[in-house]
Amino acid sequence: MTNRPHTPTLDKVHLPADLRQMSDTDLHKVAHELRAETISAVSQTGGHLGAGLGVVELTVALHAVFETPRDRLIWDVSHQTYPHKILTGRRDRIRTLRQKDGLSGFTKRSESPYDPFGAAHSSTSISAALGFAVARDLGGDPGDAIAVIGDGAMSAGMAYEAMNNAGHLGKRLIVILNDNDMSIAPPVGAMSSYLSRLYAGAPFQELKAVAKGAVSFLPPPFQEGARRAKEMLKHLTVGGTLFEELGFSYLGPIDGHDLDQLLAVLRTVRSRADGPILIHAITQKGKGYAPAEEARDKGHGVAKFNVLTGEQKKATPNAPSYTSVFANALCDQAARDDKIVAVTAAMPDGTGLKTFMERYGSRCFDVGIAEQHAVTFSAGLAAGGMKPFCAIYSTFLQRGYDQVVHDVAIQRLPVRFAIDRAGLVGADGATHAGSYDVAFLSNLPGMVVMAAADESELVRMVATAAAHDDGPIAFRFPRGEGVGVEMPLDPQPLEIGKGRVVRQGSRVALLSFGTRLSEAEVACERLEQRGITPTLADARFAKPLDRGLILSLARDHEALITIEEGAVGGFGSHVAQLLSEEGVFDAGLAYRSMVLPDVFIDQASPRDMYAVAALNAEDIEARVLQTLGVEIMTKRA
Amino acid sequence: MTNRPHTPTLDKVHLPADLRQMSDTDLHKVAHELRAETISAVSQTGGHLGAGLGVVELTVALHAVFETPRDRLIWDVSHQTYPHKILTGRRDRIRTLRQKDGLSGFTKRSESPYDPFGAAHSSTSISAALGFAVARDLGGDPGDAIAVIGDGAMSAGMAYEAMNNAGHLGKRLIVILNDNDMSIAPPVGAMSSYLSRLYAGAPFQELKAVAKGAVSFLPPPFQEGARRAKEMLKHLTVGGTLFEELGFSYLGPIDGHDLDQLLAVLRTVRSRADGPILIHAITQKGKGYAPAEEARDKGHGVAKFNVLTGEQKKATPNAPSYTSVFANALCDQAARDDKIVAVTAAMPDGTGLKTFMERYGSRCFDVGIAEQHAVTFSAGLAAGGMKPFCAIYSTFLQRGYDQVVHDVAIQRLPVRFAIDRAGLVGADGATHAGSYDVAFLSNLPGMVVMAAADESELVRMVATAAAHDDGPIAFRFPRGEGVGVEMPLDPQPLEIGKGRVVRQGSRVALLSFGTRLSEAEVACERLEQRGITPTLADARFAKPLDRGLILSLARDHEALITIEEGAVGGFGSHVAQLLSEEGVFDAGLAYRSMVLPDVFIDQASPRDMYAVAALNAEDIEARVLQTLGVEIMTKRA
Repeated sequence: MTNRPHTPTLDKVHLPADLRQMSDTDLHKVAHELRAETISAVSQTGGHLGAGLGVVELTVALHAVFETPRDRLIWDVSHQTYPHKILTGRRDRIRTLRQKDGLSGFTKRSESPYDPFGAAHSSTSISAALGFAVARDLGGDPGDAIAVIGDGAMSAGMAYEAMNNAGHLGKRLIVILNDNDMSIAPPVGAMSSYLSRLYAGAPFQELKAVAKGAVSFLPPPFQEGARRAKEMLKHLTVGGTLFEELGFSYLGPIDGHDLDQLLAVLRTVRSRADGPILIHAITQKGKGYAPAEEARDKGHGVAKFNVLTGEQKKATPNAPSYTSVFANALCDQAARDDKIVAVTAAMPDGTGLKTFMERYGSRCFDVGIAEQHAVTFSAGLAAGGMKPFCAIYSTFLQRGYDQVVHDVAIQRLPVRFAIDRAGLVGADGATHAGSYDVAFLSNLPGMVVMAAADESELVRMVATAAAHDDGPIAFRFPRGEGVGVEMPLDPQPLEIGKGRVVRQGSRVALLSFGTRLSEAEVACERLEQRGITPTLADARFAKPLDRGLILSLARDHEALITIEEGAVGGFGSHVAQLLSEEGVFDAGLAYRSMVLPDVFIDQASPRDMYAVAALNAEDIEARVLQTLGVEIMTKRA
Repeated sequence: MTNRPHTPTLDKVHLPADLRQMSDTDLHKVAHELRAETISAVSQTGGHLGAGLGVVELTVALHAVFETPRDRLIWDVSHQTYPHKILTGRRDRIRTLRQKDGLSGFTKRSESPYDPFGAAHSSTSISAALGFAVARDLGGDPGDAIAVIGDGAMSAGMAYEAMNNAGHLGKRLIVILNDNDMSIAPPVGAMSSYLSRLYAGAPFQELKAVAKGAVSFLPPPFQEGARRAKEMLKHLTVGGTLFEELGFSYLGPIDGHDLDQLLAVLRTVRSRADGPILIHAITQKGKGYAPAEEARDKGHGVAKFNVLTGEQKKATPNAPSYTSVFANALCDQAARDDKIVAVTAAMPDGTGLKTFMERYGSRCFDVGIAEQHAVTFSAGLAAGGMKPFCAIYSTFLQRGYDQVVHDVAIQRLPVRFAIDRAGLVGADGATHAGSYDVAFLSNLPGMVVMAAADESELVRMVATAAAHDDGPIAFRFPRGEGVGVEMPLDPQPLEIGKGRVVRQGSRVALLSFGTRLSEAEVACERLEQRGITPTLADARFAKPLDRGLILSLARDHEALITIEEGAVGGFGSHVAQLLSEEGVFDAGLAYRSMVLPDVFIDQASPRDMYAVAALNAEDIEARVLQTLGVEIMTKRA
């Protein structure tokens, strides 16, 4: 609560309607104070800083010109919406961002009527906005539909599909291309070069003059008719043929930090646009806060920080992150095998492939936010004789699912899927949870599916994937730090489809798939104090299953409990299928499958999220006791 | 074997290398005879006719100019590859197309080295070709990479993602845009209009002259240097700014049926291209066969037919198809509720929405081959107050999986998914099997998942979906005819999460999800002759499960067997999870889950495919006997 900025004008804004009563001069003050408030809030919570700072003026201008929430403002990805949240009645909770029970770090329909369509994954906004626009014209909810989409998000095919459809339908629809030449990483792809050329070809000065001229058309009533306004809009356009070929009017590029220009352009568009229009605004990620502007990633995702110095208060790690362990292990494999290549969909930092890229630049491919292409491109690389590692977060691999089925699995091509952010991920919440990959991969014929129990296992799984040339193979691992185990010096491949017994006990067997293993170990220690000595095994493989291990665990114990960081349909379901096929249930077996529950779990620390999911050590302990019919005497935390 | 065309020149072509020994005059003869042979073959097998006829000259020219299979020829979708198969050593089996144990109707790596990358779903070819091109340049397999992609396939975001990446990488890569202004249905979308404008702007005559000039550059050694050849290529270009902005050289449009022009252009490109190049060829679907040219769908998918008249020998149906039942039921609902809208991804015929489109044109949206956009556009429509039915085949819904999770399920938006082609589909084979939707939808919180047991149930499920406004709902139904049951006159919505008992018996309970119900009924009749009277229930819902029904079936029987047309992880896995959570297995229950097996099943009749899957009546009967421990005396068919 210390060092709050002085914000006398912003204090008068309770809802966007208040902005519409203000002079343009006051709107300038609001923008200035909104930037300071955003920096102050994120310094306390951590989160996405640079993106929000880049759209402060745009946020003010949009809410001042359009009649939100009747007009639907749809932010793509929506990690840039902290200023939007401050202006839309959520300022009192802005310092709870990304915390348990606090505001989401993204837009969320259940959080506010000013969030008409939630997001978190990229490139959905034009499709959603077109849905609103078409609904409106069919007698659904009224109002304009406005999508704000970054240049990085334009590399995704989904955005193109939406523009292709919107250009065809011709409905009134406003797309604001927020071009900061920087998605998360520096941009790649031909579209990005195209946008840069548009920018280079059109100095702001000319545009400013035209935009200032536009003010004379406003406010309504207009001195002249629609014809002249359209002419004016047309003159604002100095490029953008590509968008025009797709049926959009193109307007820009304009300076996204020049509030006067933004207000003039948006007012003109609001009063005169018909059909789909794309406004190309140039912004700067991290704008107005030197430590963010100067950071390599422009302050994309930051920890809590000191506002004056920009110094981030990152916690000291106890063990290397799974991501870095993966990245280093892959580099080690690549040093020995020049057929190994790596593919990322715009996440060289998040997946750790930045390390690989620095060492093996010509063998590393950042394809943009394009998971569909990433998967099939990897399949092509494999068919051409390479050994591709396709590194995609679990939640984003959902974008390439058909390609995994159709291009990789059916053709049995040896693509290696490195699946980061498996399971619950913390502050990014439900939209980023890696809940479904085990289920959607394990029922594909010929696929090998592994989960690492700790960072040493991860290294061995990278070696296993490198060595496996008979079809596709996937390994998953979570966000965050490893558990601090010793690392193998010369990691050997695992035997495909073989698990391992970690503790030999009796009565009950715990069969873990993934990093719940350490929680299960804690549960075993607690249970031993109660005189119960479980057997604990690490399955390693959801596919192929270690049939011998599983059937012997079932045969030798009263109860068998599987534990995984995934939804029903995955590892436990495959175990149940095996047990039922083998007739194990016929004579009775207390079988339980601990999986993610049937709810979307809101952001919190991963541990708190796993508490909601009932997958922590105490939950495993309780489940064992309950399954064995032991009365639980102690009160659970 | 009757009425085979006279093909003396084609008879000399055993492999594409033979084409490279022929004069251009002979290549003309080959093309002519290849067309006749294609028509003759498809008249006997049925299949995709129009697409292949449209690329006869292109197929001959590509194999005559490029050194296949060293050069990688990748056909997008690949339903146009019957002429390609005839030229690449498979002519002797061409009359087994799409039959059990015969040639696939698509390219298939396991079928021929001339099929370097299989396909069946659209828009994957550029990604795959780029993979080959990059692999080649990194020391992988040598040779050119050539993608042949239709204009319809260019509406998919995946194609754009691949072009965006290819334009950025700048590798030598050849993309042939086979523009027949017709994917399956007449084209939609802004890209399609753009291509039409390119075509309109550039009459063939000019191009022909230029292309003829190109011949003087060839064969090598070239009279002049690379500079002049590049100039020439540049002059061939008379449009295509959009592709050029994405980093491709654009060449065209050229006449895709003018073999001389094709040969000249391809020879020039082969000898001189560097970087990515797009050749825009205009073709005509069904070319050279009047009955196909004149058909509305240009002979997209045909039954066996009489070559002279074009008359198709379609079997007389016994009952209406599920597709038409769905379409009519949706129209009936739409007549009562003007908020109902429908969305298809380029399949108005296949999904039956053509009927809806004719009656409610302004409420029906064909978004192109764009499943990602289709799903999120539907989500936007729902958020805007409409009641969207998003009709997508099971296998293609895999393309929109992330959107189902992120945009629909997490936001609990009432999108209605009408999932046609559920389960095994017959002649289209493994790539089109609808095997995974139950698994990948049923573990999403808040999703309702239904499967119709017959066409009457389907009508009720359409009514249920129309009435369900509290979150997303999906219903699946198979390809083909219903079973001929009486239809409800005034279909009432089902109670969500309630199944029904069809036969009350004892000892063993069969719990069916989907259209295996009729097979289960046959199995029950056979079992009764053996003195076993199973209980038979129709689950109707995979989510939410009918807990009461399932637990009572488990309680009252020795054995419980679930049956579904889907892979493990779906309905049966959810039932097993319920039973294990409730401790039903502790005391013993002979539980079995009959699902699709862990193999990709090649094309055959659906019944034959289900025989491979062991999901027909005799398989259900055998499973009951085996589970109850009854010796099977009769030999199975």
